Amino acid sequence: MNKLLIVGTVAFDAIETPFGKTDKILGGAATYIGLSASFFNVKSAIVSVVGDDFPQEYLDLLTNKNIDISGIEVVKGGKTFFWSGKYHNDLNSRDTLETQLNVLADFNPVVPNDYKNAEVVMLGNLHPLVQSGVLDQMTSTPKLIVLDTMNFWMDCALPELMDVIKRVDVITINDEEARQLSGEYSLVKAAAKIHTMGPKYVVIKKGEHGALLFEGKNVFFAPALPLEEVFDPTGAGDTFAGGFSGYIAQSENVSFDNMKNGIIYGSNLASFCVEKFGTERMEQLEKEEVHSRLQQFKALTQFDIELS
Amino acid sequence: MNKLLIVGTVAFDAIETPFGKTDKILGGAATYIGLSASFFNVKSAIVSVVGDDFPQEYLDLLTNKNIDISGIEVVKGGKTFFWSGKYHNDLNSRDTLETQLNVLADFNPVVPNDYKNAEVVMLGNLHPLVQSGVLDQMTSTPKLIVLDTMNFWMDCALPELMDVIKRVDVITINDEEARQLSGEYSLVKAAAKIHTMGPKYVVIKKGEHGALLFEGKNVFFAPALPLEEVFDPTGAGDTFAGGFSGYIAQSENVSFDNMKNGIIYGSNLASFCVEKFGTERMEQLEKEEVHSRLQQFKALTQFDIELS
Repeated sequence: MNKLLIVGTVAFDAIETPFGKTDKILGGAATYIGLSASFFNVKSAIVSVVGDDFPQEYLDLLTNKNIDISGIEVVKGGKTFFWSGKYHNDLNSRDTLETQLNVLADFNPVVPNDYKNAEVVMLGNLHPLVQSGVLDQMTSTPKLIVLDTMNFWMDCALPELMDVIKRVDVITINDEEARQLSGEYSLVKAAAKIHTMGPKYVVIKKGEHGALLFEGKNVFFAPALPLEEVFDPTGAGDTFAGGFSGYIAQSENVSFDNMKNGIIYGSNLASFCVEKFGTERMEQLEKEEVHSRLQQFKALTQFDIELS
Repeated sequence: MNKLLIVGTVAFDAIETPFGKTDKILGGAATYIGLSASFFNVKSAIVSVVGDDFPQEYLDLLTNKNIDISGIEVVKGGKTFFWSGKYHNDLNSRDTLETQLNVLADFNPVVPNDYKNAEVVMLGNLHPLVQSGVLDQMTSTPKLIVLDTMNFWMDCALPELMDVIKRVDVITINDEEARQLSGEYSLVKAAAKIHTMGPKYVVIKKGEHGALLFEGKNVFFAPALPLEEVFDPTGAGDTFAGGFSGYIAQSENVSFDNMKNGIIYGSNLASFCVEKFGTERMEQLEKEEVHSRLQQFKALTQFDIELS
């Protein structure tokens, strides 16, 4: 079984949407990535940090999904990273109400020995120096390194971000961030420019408008599944990244054609994530539901035209 | 050969985009619909009205595309409908600078005898009473009636709009308009509500974010082709409608599966329309280019996943 190494936050979130609000609940990029990747036949581990205020039941939840948590450092007397945000009525944008870095401020990632030769590394959104620090610990070259990042690092750690972007095979980034990183409005031009920064594959996430995969002139598009109700978009991008990297790790095939499938699986899993608050839907999700939704994605996108 | 009856404006447009601006050029919903539908093996006719300021070369252009213009009334001493607009930098929104209804104000559409039994009727955006007036003249029930409309008529002629919506098989409408018409934010819910107003098929156009086709619980999605440069979005929605209705008229198959193909052809043709100002690209477009772009649409959307 192939190994997937996941780096990212394991955290508390407090979320407000037009449909309600939560207290501090389980959140964090690595949490969503791990839950999503757990639907594939891979061995996965999370590298992260929490404080000793982090409930054992949350750690148990990850363990029960067969995620190796030996790389999650628990800092004695430390407080776990906390984010709170409020979504606007259209759920397409949000305001951050509060960010407490806490133990994340001094995080030195340590990759478990057993994962230093992981076939796939998924670098979730974190300080680019932490992402680089993880790559430095790998003892064999991964088949695929995927990086997710956000505009915050472009604003305040651009040189470090550019250094780690150089080292990865795939970058996943949202449309506005792709524009900011490239200085190009057209996403086709933005992807072309980001290719020149290092990544062979560029994935541009457009939220409810789907996701684009670029490899040079090759382009593939996966729509988001049209849903009656989007309840809470938190974690959808990470769930997408987890589905993508989990599928690629399972299939160990880094061709463009197989990456298309990864993009579809990422969109598939993300479509569940948004149906309930936080990680709730992903915790309950059954493999059978993922398979049946794959049929919906096929019906949604596949056609059969004869040239006329 | 099946007949396609097109109703809509034939007009002058003056367009300003971040890439430049035009003088009065050829425009109008029926013009774009007709040019787009001319790529299919159908007999098509336009019902519209212009003033005697409308250049003969524009009429000749339509005739040269095998469009029957006997239903375009030329009003002696009248002035042609004129619209001018300015697009914002992202090209996703625009301001109307000027609208001169001119001869459109008193337009009484007259369907040519030869088209009163047309298999497909494409009601382009116009006053709903004009759209109804065309349907009243049909001597046999069309296989398919497609209606395009806009928020303007929802604001100022809603009862008349609801009357004509009841009579059509397919409505094409953009996402904001679907929300306004239905009072639902979710496009899935909006489509369900619009179904209850009459149309069996609801097409929601999302501009650069593609188009959705709904028939009850069945959903199909066609992305817009990611382009390096969108030059001028004017007429893209009408070109989409022309490709859709032209393809359906040619194939004379109103199944959901065939409508999917219509949506793909509509998106295909619209992707050309936006590449140059006004109708320029559609005038020059060759059938071979449309075929080759169909391959791009397949590469963009088709995948082959085995269940794992």
